[in-house]
Amino acid sequence: MRYIVTITIALKEGMLNPEARVIRHALTNLGFPTEDLSTARLFRVTLDAADAAAAREEGARMCERLLANPVIHHYTIEVT
Amino acid sequence: MRYIVTITIALKEGMLNPEARVIRHALTNLGFPTEDLSTARLFRVTLDAADAAAAREEGARMCERLLANPVIHHYTIEVT
Repeated sequence: MRYIVTITIALKEGMLNPEARVIRHALTNLGFPTEDLSTARLFRVTLDAADAAAAREEGARMCERLLANPVIHHYTIEVT
Repeated sequence: MRYIVTITIALKEGMLNPEARVIRHALTNLGFPTEDLSTARLFRVTLDAADAAAAREEGARMCERLLANPVIHHYTIEVT
């Protein structure tokens, strides 16, 4: 069956995120004060799998092999 | 009140996404065949607003002023 696996990859808590800091600063300068800002990458993968659990497992393997750096990233996976 | 505004920015339908193509190719080479793959950027912004509608409106203005390029991107906003 065909599943859409949505993978969100973000820096682990406590990792410095200079990009987020710069964006937050720019937003403040444009008149948009914020209390916090974090960034993440999102991958939406369409794949064939036996069931939703298998699709989720496949997504996790993709993260570990290619998409995420386990030292600095954590990822969440949603299957629809 | 404090709201978390989650902004997802992706290329418009039909725009070439060479990054997604390369990632899909790499996944195939690693033994992960996929039917489709798209990428997006995610910003999670914590801000103060009068209500959820005002928070969403603020997020949309941030996209239009800084985060997204309206020529090539579309964005979705979720408020929690």
